[in-house]
Amino acid sequence: MNKKTTIYDIAKELNVTVSTVSRALSGFPAISDATRQAVFEAAKRLNYSPNKLASALKSGRTYIIGVIVPSVQAHFFASIIHSIEEGLKDSGYRIILYQSNESVASEINGVKTLLEAQVDGIMASLSLETEDVTHFEEVIKQNKPLILFDRVHEKLKVPTVTLDDFKAGYMATQHLIEQGYKNIAYVTTSHQIRIFNDRLKGYKAALADYNLPLNEDNIIFGGLSIKDGRFGAGKLIRSKNKPDAIIAADDFTALGVIKKLKEINETPPQIGVIGFANEAFSAYITPSLSTIDQHPNQMGAECAKLFLSTIQNKPSQKISNIVIEPSLVDRQSTGITE
Amino acid sequence: MNKKTTIYDIAKELNVTVSTVSRALSGFPAISDATRQAVFEAAKRLNYSPNKLASALKSGRTYIIGVIVPSVQAHFFASIIHSIEEGLKDSGYRIILYQSNESVASEINGVKTLLEAQVDGIMASLSLETEDVTHFEEVIKQNKPLILFDRVHEKLKVPTVTLDDFKAGYMATQHLIEQGYKNIAYVTTSHQIRIFNDRLKGYKAALADYNLPLNEDNIIFGGLSIKDGRFGAGKLIRSKNKPDAIIAADDFTALGVIKKLKEINETPPQIGVIGFANEAFSAYITPSLSTIDQHPNQMGAECAKLFLSTIQNKPSQKISNIVIEPSLVDRQSTGITE
Repeated sequence: MNKKTTIYDIAKELNVTVSTVSRALSGFPAISDATRQAVFEAAKRLNYSPNKLASALKSGRTYIIGVIVPSVQAHFFASIIHSIEEGLKDSGYRIILYQSNESVASEINGVKTLLEAQVDGIMASLSLETEDVTHFEEVIKQNKPLILFDRVHEKLKVPTVTLDDFKAGYMATQHLIEQGYKNIAYVTTSHQIRIFNDRLKGYKAALADYNLPLNEDNIIFGGLSIKDGRFGAGKLIRSKNKPDAIIAADDFTALGVIKKLKEINETPPQIGVIGFANEAFSAYITPSLSTIDQHPNQMGAECAKLFLSTIQNKPSQKISNIVIEPSLVDRQSTGITE
Repeated sequence: MNKKTTIYDIAKELNVTVSTVSRALSGFPAISDATRQAVFEAAKRLNYSPNKLASALKSGRTYIIGVIVPSVQAHFFASIIHSIEEGLKDSGYRIILYQSNESVASEINGVKTLLEAQVDGIMASLSLETEDVTHFEEVIKQNKPLILFDRVHEKLKVPTVTLDDFKAGYMATQHLIEQGYKNIAYVTTSHQIRIFNDRLKGYKAALADYNLPLNEDNIIFGGLSIKDGRFGAGKLIRSKNKPDAIIAADDFTALGVIKKLKEINETPPQIGVIGFANEAFSAYITPSLSTIDQHPNQMGAECAKLFLSTIQNKPSQKISNIVIEPSLVDRQSTGITE
C-alpha cells in the first residue's frame, strides 16, 4: 500500500480524535504530556511525513466547526444542520451549534463564543435583527473560513449558499393564479432581510406578468409566527378588498392563517393558503399546507462542500455563491386533492 | 453602592465577554496581550478584589457549557435547550450544542469535542444506543460538572433531571381506560433505555390496577418514528386480538399510528391513540393527538439551576436528582371534543 499516512491514521491507531492528534502535534497546551508523547510515537511508527507534520504544527487545527442558526426549532435549520454533519462526516470535522434566537446581541456572543472555543471556521445564517455585520469580521481577520447560508448579507464578501427566493415568491404566486385565485394577499416580516424582500419581489413580478392588480394594503408587515399569521389573516378578511388567497412568508405564519380561516368557516382552499419552508407539520395538518420546498438538505450539503474546498484553498481564490432552486409542494390548502 | 466588583462588571466595562475576562485573568494563551492588559487595568480601576482575581486565576473558566442531545429536531429537546439558555442568561454562561443523532459513537465524539472546546461543564441526554457510559468519566475526571437530563444512566452518579416516566405511562393508560377503551396496545423502542422501560411499567401497572388483562403480543418493540408507528399499527390491526386503543412511546410514532388507522378507516378516536412529548405538530394534526406533556421548559430550567448550584458548591455535597411531574394533554385522538 502506497497511501501516505495522515493524521486520521494516527487518530485511528490511538483511538483518539483527529483534533487531539492535531493539537498534540501543534503544541496546544490542553493536551497531556502522555497523549502528546503517544501521538508523536505513533506519527513516527506510521511514517507520518515530516512535511505534513510541519503543516499540522503550523495549522493548529481543532477540526471543530461552529454553526450559528436563528433557531434549531425550525425544521428548515435542523435539516440544514443534519446535512452539514452528513457532508463533513468523512473529513474528521465535527460541528458545534449556537442559537441566536433571532437576537443580534446573542449572535454577537455566538461568534465570540465559537472563536473562544477555537473552532476552525464558522457557518452562519443571520438573525432577523441583524443589520450591522461587523461582529463577523473577527472570523475573517483570524483567517478562518466563514460561510453564510440562507440569510446572508451583501456586506460580507464570503462564500454563500442561498435559495433563489425571488423565484420562490414567484412560484408560490403563480401556483395560486393557476389555481384560479385572483386577489392574492401577502403576510410577511417587517425586518429588512433580503430573502423575505426577494420573495415579495417575486410575488409582485408574478402579479404583473399575469396582469393582476397589486394592492399594497394586501401586504401585511409584522412578525413570523402562528400568532402573527392569525393576526394578519384577521386583518385581511376584515379589509374592504378581501383577498381570495393568502401567501405567508413561512409555514408557521401560514398555520396561523389557516387556524384563523377555519374559525370563520372559510377553511382553505375556500381561501387559498401557501407557505414557505415545508416544515415537518405542513403535510399533517388539515387541510394539508401547500408550500415552497427550500431544499435544506441540498443547502447543508453545499455548505459542507464549500467549507472543505475553502479550507483547502488559498484565500485569493474566487468566492463561490451557490444558489439552490426552490420547488413547489402543492397540497389541499390551494385546492389540490391528495 | 457597596456591591463588590465582579468579572461581569469588567466585561461590561470593556464590552467583551465574561469568558474573555476570565481567560485574560487566568493567563489563557489565546487572548491578545492588548486585551489582557485592558482587562487587568479595568480590574484595577474597578477595584476588583484580589481574592476573586486569585480564584479566577485558579479557575480558568470559559463560561461556555456544552449540551449534548440526541437530536435538535425533536421539539422536546429544542424546548429544553431554549429554557437552559433562559436559565443561564443572567449568569454569563452561554451554551454550545452537540447532536449525537442517537449514535453512541457520535456521542463519544461529542464529549471529546466539547472538552476540547474547553467547556466548563456538560449537560447531556443519552442516545438510544448508549449502554456503556465510560466516555463521560473524563468529564468527571476533569472536575467539571456533568448533569444528565431525561435519558440518564444509573452508573453515572451525577445530578439528574428526569420525568416521572412510570407515572407518565400510568397516566396515559389510565386516561384511555377512563375513556372506555379496554384492549390497549403499546408501541415502543427495543432499546433498553430506562425512561421507555418505566413508561411501559406504568402501563402494565395501570392495566393491573383496573383489572384489565395484559397481552404481551400487544406490545410491539421496534423503533420510534413515523414509519415505525405505521408498521406497529399495521401489525396490531392484523392481530387476532385486535386492540381498541394504541399507546405510542413518542408523538412521532403516534403520528405514524394515526396515519395507518386513517388509511384503513379506523380514524381515532374509533381506535384511541395517545403519544408522549407534546411535540409542536400534535395540536395541529387531524385528529389532534392526545399526549403526555413532559414539561421540557421546567426540565431545562432545573438543569440550569442545578448547573449553577453545582459549579458553586463543593464536590462533597449531596447529589440532586430532580424529578418532574408529567401531565395529560387530552385531545381528539382519545375521544375528547375540542
